[in-house]
Amino acid sequence: MGLIVQKYGGSSVADATCLFRVANRIKSYYDKGDSLVVVVSAQGDTTDDLLEKAAEINKNPSKREMDVLLSSGEQISMSLLAMALEKLGCPVISLTGWQAGISTSARHSNARIGSIQTDRILRELDQKRIVIVAGFQGIDRYDDITTLGRGGSDTSAVALAAALHADKCQIYTDVKGVYTADPRIVPDAAKLEDISYDEMLELSSLGANVLHNRSVEVGKKFNVKMEVLSSFVDEPGTEVKEVSKVEKMIVRGVARDNEVARISLKDVGDVPGKAFTVFSILAQKNINVDIILQSLGRDGKRDISFTVSESALDAALQVLEENRDVIGAAEVLHDSDVSKVSIVGAGMVSNPGVAANMFEALYNANINIKMISTSEIKVSVLVARNEGDAAVRAIHEKFNLSNI
Amino acid sequence: MGLIVQKYGGSSVADATCLFRVANRIKSYYDKGDSLVVVVSAQGDTTDDLLEKAAEINKNPSKREMDVLLSSGEQISMSLLAMALEKLGCPVISLTGWQAGISTSARHSNARIGSIQTDRILRELDQKRIVIVAGFQGIDRYDDITTLGRGGSDTSAVALAAALHADKCQIYTDVKGVYTADPRIVPDAAKLEDISYDEMLELSSLGANVLHNRSVEVGKKFNVKMEVLSSFVDEPGTEVKEVSKVEKMIVRGVARDNEVARISLKDVGDVPGKAFTVFSILAQKNINVDIILQSLGRDGKRDISFTVSESALDAALQVLEENRDVIGAAEVLHDSDVSKVSIVGAGMVSNPGVAANMFEALYNANINIKMISTSEIKVSVLVARNEGDAAVRAIHEKFNLSNI
Repeated sequence: MGLIVQKYGGSSVADATCLFRVANRIKSYYDKGDSLVVVVSAQGDTTDDLLEKAAEINKNPSKREMDVLLSSGEQISMSLLAMALEKLGCPVISLTGWQAGISTSARHSNARIGSIQTDRILRELDQKRIVIVAGFQGIDRYDDITTLGRGGSDTSAVALAAALHADKCQIYTDVKGVYTADPRIVPDAAKLEDISYDEMLELSSLGANVLHNRSVEVGKKFNVKMEVLSSFVDEPGTEVKEVSKVEKMIVRGVARDNEVARISLKDVGDVPGKAFTVFSILAQKNINVDIILQSLGRDGKRDISFTVSESALDAALQVLEENRDVIGAAEVLHDSDVSKVSIVGAGMVSNPGVAANMFEALYNANINIKMISTSEIKVSVLVARNEGDAAVRAIHEKFNLSNI
Repeated sequence: MGLIVQKYGGSSVADATCLFRVANRIKSYYDKGDSLVVVVSAQGDTTDDLLEKAAEINKNPSKREMDVLLSSGEQISMSLLAMALEKLGCPVISLTGWQAGISTSARHSNARIGSIQTDRILRELDQKRIVIVAGFQGIDRYDDITTLGRGGSDTSAVALAAALHADKCQIYTDVKGVYTADPRIVPDAAKLEDISYDEMLELSSLGANVLHNRSVEVGKKFNVKMEVLSSFVDEPGTEVKEVSKVEKMIVRGVARDNEVARISLKDVGDVPGKAFTVFSILAQKNINVDIILQSLGRDGKRDISFTVSESALDAALQVLEENRDVIGAAEVLHDSDVSKVSIVGAGMVSNPGVAANMFEALYNANINIKMISTSEIKVSVLVARNEGDAAVRAIHEKFNLSNI
């Protein structure tokens, strides 16, 4: 018996069948005596449908009104889930973001949770009610509805778990947990029993697509015991916690991210402050830069290459073009036909030669490396996009990840 | 220049075309310098779609959760209308019921507006913003979302107009105003220039289907200048106000209501308190009784007949059956094949013979009268349902209502 926060994504509450599957799972915990706070996303296609409605009216609406519109999606799914639980005879109440006391910053469409007033939720739990909370939303200090941006419901769940000092935060999704690689690329990828916050952070930002980064950051900050598991089957998932107990594994997983593009500035003046100039110009436009590679100077010139997300490529090229004089590059090249492949594992720090093994795997598979970036717990390489999957498979096999 | 509250119903905001028609109308007032508070219903079929979704899950959900679900409908329409106004370059903000400060009783699905905290709306109006408010909804003292029941958006609009001391409350709908009879029954029915609150109250409760009763009650109580008009054309509608200036008209309109059924209790004991017993039993089940007719006693027995709404018939029969011993009727008969036809007009009080003229019209049309009920400003008769339309036409012609 304990306090459990569960989160169900859009595909888990897509229709009546899914809702009852979820409701029965919630009931099984409730019947065991657990206190439950359940965070839901909007049903399957609801968000897309609402976006389409908006696009018919105004291609560029204010973010405030978009938040009002989109937040109705969770209001629908939470009340339907409550009705399913009522049908099963469970005492239940659904709460919107503001009713659940979720206060956020005023940055519409991408707000951050500031604090959670848990009074109402605790009062409902005291009355032995299952509490359903709308994910993805809150209110700002003006009492305006905000949304948390992509993956926001995960963050809602983990933040609630932290505020309520929950025993566990279960993130239910349509995959069974965190794998050593995307099973669609590597069919014999193995499900990890557990993973540390830091490793998970690297994996999710590297395109593993299981948990949103911000939720893991919040989980790490407040030491929330998280678990990623499937709402469609009844088996343990992957625990995300401070320290993984499987210390023997050096590499925990291989991730691939195709949503990436490379930009190269040729023959930039080899003078101090040049890199600062380039990246502060990009930062002003909120363009995140990932791997950065700077060539050695030659004849007073050097090249600077870096990656951005593919969706930010056009904006990046535009701002670089606008500031061409300041940057002073002979040429701005770009290549979106690339894939970023990364290995992640806390064990790497104390195991020299991991990167070398990765490069060897790629060499044996005849895959050319375009860029390299390393940190304490990851090594990323940029390869041609059509070689990305082969790179993942080669690395996965090299580290024998199917047999963990 | 003044403060105008406008209300647009579901058919007026059904799709992008409708929304821009409405937005352009709002803009035309705004451009003239008026301050605007606009109340919207859910789009066309949204409410039905949501009800269908709920029915798939639970045929008998709690009213609280149903209110959470249904209130999302106005949240969608209000944000879309705001986006349309943004597109037209108007400063605008949409507010849910709770954001607009609408406090209601805690009676879910049929809550009453208690008070309106107008601070937020006034602040937005001060900033020259058009304020869109979700109709039909509010919050109770527990911060739970409530809905106002059928026709609730009309009530939201009139209550807001009262609280804001608006100069006018315009109710936009899909008809051009209040007519002397339903134009689908009487093609040459005339549009009334104005009508008094009392007359409107009788007409709307009699099935004229233009304004909801509660909105007119609120309008009368706070003397709100109301106007019923079409959102599809650009012409004056019908004003609803304290005293109609067209004193010469005796009868203002003919209404027909098919949502009615008659129940007869045969041979009830002719003792004091019997009627009280019967109607208090019905009142306990929230069943409203309309026309009541009690026969003269004969051999210590008498008959009691009354009408209820057709949708309440089954519940009424059931509670009467359960209390058969207390009521002591020999037989309980019922007839739902009836139609209630009524004439309404403040002039009737001082014009004897109006009822007689109505009965003469029905006699000439060979229509049998099953029950009669009169008040100061109306006369209602119950006729066979298949004769209802003919009755309306005969009466409309008798009083020459096409030529007002």
